Amino acid sequence: MIGIFDSGIGGLTTVRAILEIMPGYDLIYFGDTARTPYGTKSRSTVIRYAIENTEFLIKKGATMIVMACNTASSVATEAIKERFDMPIFEVISPAVALAIETSKRMQIGVIGTRGTIKSGIYEKKILEKADQARVFSTPCPLLVPLVEEGWVKKPETAMIVKKYLLPLKTRQIDTLILGCTHYPILKSIIQQKIGRRVAIIDSSIAVSNTIKTYLDDHPDIEKTLSKEGRAFFFVSDITTQFEKTAEIALKRKIDLTHVEM
Amino acid sequence: MIGIFDSGIGGLTTVRAILEIMPGYDLIYFGDTARTPYGTKSRSTVIRYAIENTEFLIKKGATMIVMACNTASSVATEAIKERFDMPIFEVISPAVALAIETSKRMQIGVIGTRGTIKSGIYEKKILEKADQARVFSTPCPLLVPLVEEGWVKKPETAMIVKKYLLPLKTRQIDTLILGCTHYPILKSIIQQKIGRRVAIIDSSIAVSNTIKTYLDDHPDIEKTLSKEGRAFFFVSDITTQFEKTAEIALKRKIDLTHVEM
Repeated sequence: MIGIFDSGIGGLTTVRAILEIMPGYDLIYFGDTARTPYGTKSRSTVIRYAIENTEFLIKKGATMIVMACNTASSVATEAIKERFDMPIFEVISPAVALAIETSKRMQIGVIGTRGTIKSGIYEKKILEKADQARVFSTPCPLLVPLVEEGWVKKPETAMIVKKYLLPLKTRQIDTLILGCTHYPILKSIIQQKIGRRVAIIDSSIAVSNTIKTYLDDHPDIEKTLSKEGRAFFFVSDITTQFEKTAEIALKRKIDLTHVEM
Repeated sequence: MIGIFDSGIGGLTTVRAILEIMPGYDLIYFGDTARTPYGTKSRSTVIRYAIENTEFLIKKGATMIVMACNTASSVATEAIKERFDMPIFEVISPAVALAIETSKRMQIGVIGTRGTIKSGIYEKKILEKADQARVFSTPCPLLVPLVEEGWVKKPETAMIVKKYLLPLKTRQIDTLILGCTHYPILKSIIQQKIGRRVAIIDSSIAVSNTIKTYLDDHPDIEKTLSKEGRAFFFVSDITTQFEKTAEIALKRKIDLTHVEM
C-alpha cells in the first residue's frame, strides 16, 4: 500500500490530489496531530518524528512512503531514505521541477513554515536545476494555525497573507511555490494577494504526478500495490476541530482512527 | 525544589511571577516545546503529556509541582494529584478565587485555549464558590501562535483580539480571567479592547500568591525547599524562535537546556 504521513491534517490535500490523479490505489494516512505542528520545531526533532511515522506506516502495511509534510521533506528526506529500503517520495523536488517548467522569467517565490524556509532546501534545489533562477523565500508561520482554525475566508487572514506576500510581490516573482500542505486551502486568497499573473505551484498536485510517472515507469513495483479503492486514516490525537479541518482539506467526511504513538 | 511545567514557553510568565513574589527559591522549569501547543489537543493526550512532564521534573529533583499550563491544569489536575504524592498546584483555582474577590457585579469573562474553554472548568469552579455569578467564556486559539511569533504589537493581533473579545464586551463583564499563560504578554491590547474598567486577572500572579501562602502555612514543607536563587530551564525542543519568545516571556535572557522526552 501507499503510506502517506504529515505533521497533522494538512497532508490530506496531498491525499486528495493522489485520489484524483491516480484513483483506485489503497492508501494509509498518518497525521501526527498529537505533536503538530512541525514547522516551528527543530531539525533533529522533526527527523525523529519522521522516522517514527514511517515505522508506523510500514507496520500498518505501507510499501512506499509519501512524506506529505514540507517541513519533514525539507529536513528528514536523507535520514528516511538511508533508513528505509523502499520508494520514498518527498514533496519538494516535484514542486521545484514544476516551478522551473512553469516560470518564464525564473523569478520564483517560495512560502512555507519557518522550518522549511530556514532549511533553504527549495532555493538549493531550484538553483541546482536552473542556476539563472532568482529565488525569494519567506516564512508564513501563522497560516497553519489560521487554516487549522478554519479562518479561511476571514479578513484578518487576508491581511496576514497580504503582509507575508508583500516582499515577494515587490520582487515581481512570476511563480510562487506553496511550500506547505496547508496553503492550497488558502489558494484563492494567495492568488488574489500575489496577483493573478503569478503562477501558483501546488506541491500536492506536483508530488501526485511524480508518483504516477514513477509507477508507470516501474511496473514491477506498481503491480505489488493493492488497488481496492480503500483509504485508512490514522491520527495520533483526535478532536472535533481536527475532524472539521480534515473535512475542509479532503472536501469530504472521513473516519479518523486514533492511535497512540 | 519547585518544579514548573508548561506546554511550551508561555509558562515562563508564571516563573517570572514566582521569582518576583517569592524570590530566592530554586526552580526547575520544563517547557514541552517538542509537542507544543496543548490547547488544540485532546484531553487524554494532554493528561499523558502532563504525567510525563511531572515524572521528568521529579527525576530532576522537584518535590512540588506547579502546572503553569492552563490546558493541563484544566484536564489533568485530578490525574496528577492521584498519581504523585506531593504538593501539586494548578493555575485555575487561584485565578478563580482572585476573580471572585475582585468582581463587583459577578459578570466574569474567561478566555483560554480551545481545550481549556471546552473543559468548562473555570465556569464550574466559579459557580461552586459564587453561585450568583454569570460566566461568559470564549476560546482564543490564535493568540498562542501570535505570541509565539512575537506579533505582540501588530495591528492584525489587535484586530483578532478585538474580534475574540466582542462577545464578552457585549455581555458587559466587569472581570476577565486570562486563562492561558501566553495572554499576560498581550495584556495591554486585551485591556484596551475589553475596556479599561474591566479588571484583568492574571493567573500567573494568582498562582504565585497561592504558593506563597501555602508555604507560609506549611513551614515543614517550606524548610525542605532549597533556596540558593538558582533556576534551571529545560525544553523538549529548541529553536531560535523559542529562545526569543522565552526572552519576551521572562523579560530576560536565559539558557534553555534541550532534553529528549
